[in-house]
Amino acid sequence: MNTAATRTRPIIALAMGDPAGISPELTAKIVALDEARAAARIVIIGDKRIFDEGAAVAKVAPDVEVIGAGDAIPPTSQRPIFIDLRHLDPAAITRGVASRAGGEFALANYGHALKRVAAGQAQAVCFTPFNKQAMRLALASYDDEIRFTADTLGISTAATEFNILDRLWNARVTSHVPLSKVASMLTIDAVVNALELTAKSLRAAGFNPPRIAVAGLNPHAGDGGNFGREEIDVIGPAVRRARALGVPAEGPYPADTVFVRARSGAFDAVLTMYHDQGQIAMKLMGFERGVTLLGGFPFPICTPAHGTAYEIAGQGVANLGATRAALLLAVEMALRVAH
Amino acid sequence: MNTAATRTRPIIALAMGDPAGISPELTAKIVALDEARAAARIVIIGDKRIFDEGAAVAKVAPDVEVIGAGDAIPPTSQRPIFIDLRHLDPAAITRGVASRAGGEFALANYGHALKRVAAGQAQAVCFTPFNKQAMRLALASYDDEIRFTADTLGISTAATEFNILDRLWNARVTSHVPLSKVASMLTIDAVVNALELTAKSLRAAGFNPPRIAVAGLNPHAGDGGNFGREEIDVIGPAVRRARALGVPAEGPYPADTVFVRARSGAFDAVLTMYHDQGQIAMKLMGFERGVTLLGGFPFPICTPAHGTAYEIAGQGVANLGATRAALLLAVEMALRVAH
Repeated sequence: MNTAATRTRPIIALAMGDPAGISPELTAKIVALDEARAAARIVIIGDKRIFDEGAAVAKVAPDVEVIGAGDAIPPTSQRPIFIDLRHLDPAAITRGVASRAGGEFALANYGHALKRVAAGQAQAVCFTPFNKQAMRLALASYDDEIRFTADTLGISTAATEFNILDRLWNARVTSHVPLSKVASMLTIDAVVNALELTAKSLRAAGFNPPRIAVAGLNPHAGDGGNFGREEIDVIGPAVRRARALGVPAEGPYPADTVFVRARSGAFDAVLTMYHDQGQIAMKLMGFERGVTLLGGFPFPICTPAHGTAYEIAGQGVANLGATRAALLLAVEMALRVAH
Repeated sequence: MNTAATRTRPIIALAMGDPAGISPELTAKIVALDEARAAARIVIIGDKRIFDEGAAVAKVAPDVEVIGAGDAIPPTSQRPIFIDLRHLDPAAITRGVASRAGGEFALANYGHALKRVAAGQAQAVCFTPFNKQAMRLALASYDDEIRFTADTLGISTAATEFNILDRLWNARVTSHVPLSKVASMLTIDAVVNALELTAKSLRAAGFNPPRIAVAGLNPHAGDGGNFGREEIDVIGPAVRRARALGVPAEGPYPADTVFVRARSGAFDAVLTMYHDQGQIAMKLMGFERGVTLLGGFPFPICTPAHGTAYEIAGQGVANLGATRAALLLAVEMALRVAH
């Protein structure tokens, strides 16, 4: 069967995140959302008992077809599919508490989702929020989603995290490193690579051509070399090389005004040189409502930017906005890969 | 004479800024504002011809009493006083063009205002926007307002710039330096000194006790040392020492959320470690509507945060909001010094 409906609805593997927070209710809510089911064939990965608890909290009753961990995804089902790994009894979880069991649950679901997509059974992955403390309890070597994903997929190419709020993307050249190391880590190659990855990901999401602004490193973008030379010696040459390679980048621009311009619609993305340069701006603009995209992998991986919100777990008040945006971005990118 | 009206209206020396931009019309507009004249005895310093042109542009007709550069300020006048330095013919200025003559005009006015206050003839200084290019044409060694003020007053104590938007203040430990130098410039003494100056200035503006948040340097405030140790080795100890000295400081807090909290009212001020850490946030929140306070001098010095706006000069559309806020802050602080 290959109706218009199935052709235009990509299969999205939706991994349940940390079970002690709002992830179960968000998972149930997004599956219950007509708009989401109309956009995607959703394949949830988790434990049906945890999912049912989330549905009860969210006061929704999504109709799903349950299959087992080893089963193929039924090609003709019009209902969402639930791959029941049957690995977590809700009684083992205390709401609002990070636990090893919770971390193991999320890791298993996410790993299963990645492998389903890698095997060609789905086109993109979404996941509801993880709790980093629980992940580390479950896997001491757990660093972040990027590393875990690369390890799981056996991929060593450049990957990065994009922060996306409404239509504005933020990518960064350096991330979780001391500020004192940032300048020495900025090389022309590093900036060019980040620009190429950013442009590729933006194009994959439908920005053609994307408009990418590059932030400077120093105050007033160095003020012509008075307050630092990285703009002259590294970032400027990198922008020029990227442009020669077909990447429509501009800058470097002073970091303290580039987001004001981007917010007003001048750019689709801002490439920042370090973590807080982008995060200060994005969080002030409401990035908690936004989406995190893991870029540089063979398929889209999206998650809401907010966390597990332990303080409101189980109350049924969790806002679905970021999860909806994450799913719809995954759909948009999956469609562009597929067609 | 020492009526209630004169006792409660401090004398504010208002120096006219760059003549080619919106400073003349802002100067005329603020003098014409009933609220401003009710709050302060305003003493304008400039050239009456430039002022009159500004009044014509702004379509206001402020009534002022003109005196000469060497005259004492009349103690009993209820009208604003205009000290006419008679040093700039409007014909010498082209609107929208930075010039040496314009820079010399602004420098002379500002220097005169500083000396009047230093001599005890006024209690605070306000100035309408300067143009940095014009200032440098007039005085090659001109660096910034802080340096010029310290030189003019012969003062070598610590001074700093506070950025103030509505009720939120931002101060910084380092400013116009390369980002690569920031970490090495952070010492316990530097952070403690900045905190003491910030607390003193906040108290002088009526925050008692002030609530001061201190930003970390590294991503996630170092994440317990994983992404840098300055929070553990420098900033944390500085906060503790400052508290022992009676400065109500808190932190270090992650830079990417501290402004979100401050915006919601949790703090009166944020001390940032470097220029863009604060400027990215303040400019996104609308700092162009705000006020710059030069702190650490024996009297308050305030100016609107925005610039000379050459592109709208002479149109009469310049917004008075930041100039009004600057004057009222100067009044507030002058009253607290005086009483």
